[in-house]
Amino acid sequence: MRYLRYKKDGAAAYGLLTDEDTVWEIRGDIFAEHEPGREFGLDEVTLLSPVQPGKVVCVGLNYRRHAVEIGLPLPPEPVIFLKPPSAVVGPGEPIVHPTVSRHLEYEGELAVVIGRRATGIPPERAGEHIFGYTCANDVTARDLQHTDRQWDRAKGFDTFLPLGPWVVTQDLAPWRIRTILNGAVRQDASSAEMVFSVAQVVSFISGVMTLYPGDVVLTGTPPGTGPLVDGDRLEVRIEGIGGLLNPVISQEKRL
Amino acid sequence: MRYLRYKKDGAAAYGLLTDEDTVWEIRGDIFAEHEPGREFGLDEVTLLSPVQPGKVVCVGLNYRRHAVEIGLPLPPEPVIFLKPPSAVVGPGEPIVHPTVSRHLEYEGELAVVIGRRATGIPPERAGEHIFGYTCANDVTARDLQHTDRQWDRAKGFDTFLPLGPWVVTQDLAPWRIRTILNGAVRQDASSAEMVFSVAQVVSFISGVMTLYPGDVVLTGTPPGTGPLVDGDRLEVRIEGIGGLLNPVISQEKRL
Repeated sequence: MRYLRYKKDGAAAYGLLTDEDTVWEIRGDIFAEHEPGREFGLDEVTLLSPVQPGKVVCVGLNYRRHAVEIGLPLPPEPVIFLKPPSAVVGPGEPIVHPTVSRHLEYEGELAVVIGRRATGIPPERAGEHIFGYTCANDVTARDLQHTDRQWDRAKGFDTFLPLGPWVVTQDLAPWRIRTILNGAVRQDASSAEMVFSVAQVVSFISGVMTLYPGDVVLTGTPPGTGPLVDGDRLEVRIEGIGGLLNPVISQEKRL
Repeated sequence: MRYLRYKKDGAAAYGLLTDEDTVWEIRGDIFAEHEPGREFGLDEVTLLSPVQPGKVVCVGLNYRRHAVEIGLPLPPEPVIFLKPPSAVVGPGEPIVHPTVSRHLEYEGELAVVIGRRATGIPPERAGEHIFGYTCANDVTARDLQHTDRQWDRAKGFDTFLPLGPWVVTQDLAPWRIRTILNGAVRQDASSAEMVFSVAQVVSFISGVMTLYPGDVVLTGTPPGTGPLVDGDRLEVRIEGIGGLLNPVISQEKRL
């Protein structure tokens, strides 16, 4: 199943993508009771971020070669951090490069959407709490990440979390994750290369903080991160899900 | 005005504390349209966290003497980090000491509740976006803060953010902030000692991420932080607001 959110005639709704170009409106809460509504063509709606997370929990340094390329040691346990829900944007929405940073980078990632409340669950039961999977871009102001030492500002600007295009409920692991900058492949990795598996990450986080339906977990970026500049077009593409494409625009141009 | 949230007969509602012991139910959204409902005695209701924040943004090292006591240099700009909304508890609810940490600490703080959407606002207009003020305890697993280097896990466990007892809408700055551990005063400072003022902090954060009604900003802890152990009773008391009292319980006992 592929769940999405869209805007049509000024109103937002959840929907189900039933074939390559047909959307069924969903009435109600996708994590609880809901029923089908009207049917549209995919080209008749504007896609939004497929969920509106209550929180977004990320794991850093989860691919060995990425830790090496940014010069940080691999942690013995997952290092987790948060991104604010206010950073979320949907497919096609611009990533705004803030004037305060001189060095923006993309980080393509597999995102996990939680479907059922999770507190202190073991890895072998993590799957029961996962609703589905989507593409994410953990946009980072690399210069501010280094000067602040804490990562939350560098990763927390508005528009720094593109999500989408939809949530696929089947677990098709191992996932092939690619990031394509202006048509050139820059990241290309398998989720099998993760230091901590999806199940281990979800389990670890649920031992710290309760995860609720709609919460999003980012599973770390593979090697190949690099700079983004005004005018770039960045796609995070995961086989079995689809492509999440966002243009980059400078803050001056947006104002 | 003093706004609170409470539970009565299994249902949660916002309320207005009209004198020392009378609560007026509020029907609707305190940040938008609402009207008065029934009247109760304060002793007839169970207080909840006065708001349910969409995000909680904190500033670290905002009192000179606290930076000295934990051995970190004062930053040239506010260092911001996030706490997850899942960490919030209300007055009287236990702070659960997780087994994974051997060193829990309290950090009494003045919390600011946002009332109006704020993006890129200058300090002199910050007040227009503030709904009110309450007490907060930025509970921190000090050992994990050091081992992780990122602060989000150490500060993000469930129950690590007591808030309350209510939100006072008048700006009564300078605020006298005290933390009282088992009856003994451990922190006693004025908000006038902040490195970055409330207005500067709110302005700075709004330049990074959009703040929405109900979002909470923690303004940093004064010197005097110290350990919490099972059985402790910790009160954060701010003159002009009131006292936020929470017991500490070990995770083993709670299970």
